[in-house]
Amino acid sequence: MNFNERLASICNHKNSYVCVGLDVDIEKIPPFMQSDPDALYNFSKAIIDATLEYTAAYKINTAFFEAYGKSGWDALERIAALLPDSVIRIADAKRADIGNTSRRYAHAFFRTMPFDAITVNPYLGYDAVAPFIEESEKGAFILCITSNPGGADFQHLNDGTMMLFEKVASTTQSWNQNKNCGLVTGATKPDELKKVRELAPELPLLIPGIGAQGGDLQSSVTHALTSPNDTALFNSSRGIIYGASDKSFADVAGEKARELRDSINQCIEF
Amino acid sequence: MNFNERLASICNHKNSYVCVGLDVDIEKIPPFMQSDPDALYNFSKAIIDATLEYTAAYKINTAFFEAYGKSGWDALERIAALLPDSVIRIADAKRADIGNTSRRYAHAFFRTMPFDAITVNPYLGYDAVAPFIEESEKGAFILCITSNPGGADFQHLNDGTMMLFEKVASTTQSWNQNKNCGLVTGATKPDELKKVRELAPELPLLIPGIGAQGGDLQSSVTHALTSPNDTALFNSSRGIIYGASDKSFADVAGEKARELRDSINQCIEF
Repeated sequence: MNFNERLASICNHKNSYVCVGLDVDIEKIPPFMQSDPDALYNFSKAIIDATLEYTAAYKINTAFFEAYGKSGWDALERIAALLPDSVIRIADAKRADIGNTSRRYAHAFFRTMPFDAITVNPYLGYDAVAPFIEESEKGAFILCITSNPGGADFQHLNDGTMMLFEKVASTTQSWNQNKNCGLVTGATKPDELKKVRELAPELPLLIPGIGAQGGDLQSSVTHALTSPNDTALFNSSRGIIYGASDKSFADVAGEKARELRDSINQCIEF
Repeated sequence: MNFNERLASICNHKNSYVCVGLDVDIEKIPPFMQSDPDALYNFSKAIIDATLEYTAAYKINTAFFEAYGKSGWDALERIAALLPDSVIRIADAKRADIGNTSRRYAHAFFRTMPFDAITVNPYLGYDAVAPFIEESEKGAFILCITSNPGGADFQHLNDGTMMLFEKVASTTQSWNQNKNCGLVTGATKPDELKKVRELAPELPLLIPGIGAQGGDLQSSVTHALTSPNDTALFNSSRGIIYGASDKSFADVAGEKARELRDSINQCIEF
């Protein structure tokens, strides 16, 4: 089964468009766990166990693990291996390099680790993306509209026919020969999200920026899920994993994931 | 001393604009070393020892280490720690994420590891770059023109006044308040390199693409080093580190680095 079909199947089967972001910062986890030498893994495992029922995908942001050096990378590998086949495992790594080098990144995330998909930066163009989309079972979410304030610095450059992010959207649609391309479209930019859905009707959208970053859930859902054929993942990281600082943290994370699942489903208008 | 001053000082002191790229692929190192369980480190150490005299900077591409998982990351950390203060240590990581997350990458490369500079992808704009350029002693080389064929897919988007890569060049010039910004400009695109030097007269250029990728050294040097005030690093990876497959590999790498240093210096026209 190709990546996009598998993602849609999991969302349908679990009746969930939730992606839980594992952006684990030891300074933000419950204080009683901070001295655990395997805190990154044990905190993540507890969050995964508590949220799995409500979640279609997990997105692990590599920056938060690289910050701890080799012990962080070791935890990243073990957490990736912990995630079951019943969910989509996304490496939020935002990698891209010349083809020869992107191929090594693809090896790292798809072979050395068992990720199903990776986030990819489009700046270097097609041959930098190609190694991530050669196998139909593995997917790539290409950065299109990012949720941060600086996103507009270059993404809004307009050639008279369209803006850069629109060109990325339509180009990625053309790269979707193996049915394994998606787009990252920040929830903080609803007008742009709407345009992206129009330009890339077949692509799943990975939507960060709800919750701590202030993106509006209703408009994001309305624009991303326009018919039963659309697929999207709505990611929450800080809003789910840091819901409590005592021993209830995992239960609270489960509750937050369930609430997000239900809130998304209530926003669907078709 | 700010990053750009230190880089210029090292180039002047060593009379070298050479950057050696440590893109270490175990399948390409001498066969007699491939079974060494610490091959990444031992190969890199031998290359560094043999090339140090002729080299202003080393650029370690993270993809080649991540491909080997935690043992690769462990080697990356030890190789970074091995490089002396007499050279510029560049993490060719091409990272960028929203500010909160870029900050964790900056921690990984500038605190957990002792890199002096990192390559950064501009697609996410200013707040994604800012954490890498907050400290004047640490630098960032922003991707501007990449050396691969797909570079033109988006970098040539033209808003009627300039192309995306030109906007990246002029914007990065404006971000250079702490005198620690540079640009990555591929040697395979000499006309674009010339424009970048005009738009960003103060910035050091990191120039990959000579050697295996076919970039022309004379035109790259002519356009990048227009006066004694300009600084540039010319990177060669495969052309230096894989020069021989027997026990002479390190000596040959040293010889290749020396030849590149001399070839660059002979191309300088001012």
